[in-house]
Amino acid sequence: MARLKCIISYDGSLFSGFQIQPKKRTVQGEMEKALTKMHKGTPIRIQASGRTDTGVHSKGQTVHFDSAYDIPTTNWKQALNTLLPGDLYVWEVGIVSDTFHARYDVVEKEYRYYIWNEKEIDVFKRNYAYQFPYTLNVTAMQEACRYLEGEHDFTTFSSAKATTKGSKKRTLYQAVCEQNGNEIVFIFRGSGFLYNMVRIIVGVMLDIGQERRKPSDIVELLAKKDRQMVGETVPPQGLYLVAVKYK
Amino acid sequence: MARLKCIISYDGSLFSGFQIQPKKRTVQGEMEKALTKMHKGTPIRIQASGRTDTGVHSKGQTVHFDSAYDIPTTNWKQALNTLLPGDLYVWEVGIVSDTFHARYDVVEKEYRYYIWNEKEIDVFKRNYAYQFPYTLNVTAMQEACRYLEGEHDFTTFSSAKATTKGSKKRTLYQAVCEQNGNEIVFIFRGSGFLYNMVRIIVGVMLDIGQERRKPSDIVELLAKKDRQMVGETVPPQGLYLVAVKYK
Repeated sequence: MARLKCIISYDGSLFSGFQIQPKKRTVQGEMEKALTKMHKGTPIRIQASGRTDTGVHSKGQTVHFDSAYDIPTTNWKQALNTLLPGDLYVWEVGIVSDTFHARYDVVEKEYRYYIWNEKEIDVFKRNYAYQFPYTLNVTAMQEACRYLEGEHDFTTFSSAKATTKGSKKRTLYQAVCEQNGNEIVFIFRGSGFLYNMVRIIVGVMLDIGQERRKPSDIVELLAKKDRQMVGETVPPQGLYLVAVKYK
Repeated sequence: MARLKCIISYDGSLFSGFQIQPKKRTVQGEMEKALTKMHKGTPIRIQASGRTDTGVHSKGQTVHFDSAYDIPTTNWKQALNTLLPGDLYVWEVGIVSDTFHARYDVVEKEYRYYIWNEKEIDVFKRNYAYQFPYTLNVTAMQEACRYLEGEHDFTTFSSAKATTKGSKKRTLYQAVCEQNGNEIVFIFRGSGFLYNMVRIIVGVMLDIGQERRKPSDIVELLAKKDRQMVGETVPPQGLYLVAVKYK
């Protein structure tokens, strides 16, 4: 028996999110179907670094599973990619220790959120960025990002539907906003992320970019620990899970 | 009665091509449905610069139609985009003379074909470029492009299924190949294009890029006027109709 770790990318557009659900097309469902087929019907379950919602993309999601097969990792990669659909791809397969856990051993995750800031719709970006037509003050959003870095209780920036019972303290190692022409990207690296945290933060950033709020409002919003203080969650198609780091 | 010209873009991934067909989702079908709705059920037919196949994209397809409505062109644009699906967008609406014809008045078309030349699959490009894993000699392809420019009989480079009865002489004003990192793009500007012409040419270019043929073979291939001389048509998802020019 060996434990295998896979780094996978997926285009979230046609998946009902990561987590397996009856009668829905999910990343976990497609991946377990391929693995079970490889194992001649013996069900194989995977564990991921965390879930992603419907429409959210991945370039670095990491999963693990156990197999009785003893085959080289390059063959694992090829066999899996042959069985997987075109919108789900295994970048890397590695053998890890029997105690490795894709979720519990995470030390850092990186998410990116892409805004296409342009009045005219680009049909090719409809599933891959949030198309936002209004003028944004990027300098103000960059300043606001700095208030998010470090350890904070992110209750204000997590979904009221969150089931997390423990502490809502998380550490953001990096929170930045970069502009390349009409594309604006938010980069967040942190110890962990609460449910909808990136999408709620970006919603507030767009308020700041439209000068409806000041960058320093972030300090007060964090202190309030109240989801009701902030606006809407931005849509999923701009969000990418870019990397997951382990010890 | 006014004649209107529209420049439209579409993501070809989920369309069964441009031309209307019963029970299929087509660009013409969606556009005529929106126009007919705007005209309270009076059927409106559109004429395009030409068809595009299933999976082929557009950034500059041009169509015309007639309407009894007298409304400003900005309102036309907004009304149409409100009714159209997310993968079809009207960039520009203009009033043209009653004798304008989107197909017969074309003086130049530009197509681009995108290759993603990389061993690892990028799930985000699966519908938007041809992912080609083998090493390509770009200089050889650039040299080959030069033999295509000018007026030639393109019979060798047109589908045997083509229904065109007239001359297969066309003029290519520009045929170039550019490389930006792993992306290789072919740009073709010409007086007109035969059925599958760009996709057959790119197939030959990839043979030349793999050094299975010499760049100067193009001269001989053009002279043979025989589709059987060349290999397979490359897939549709790399192809974009970029611009259509009129007198």
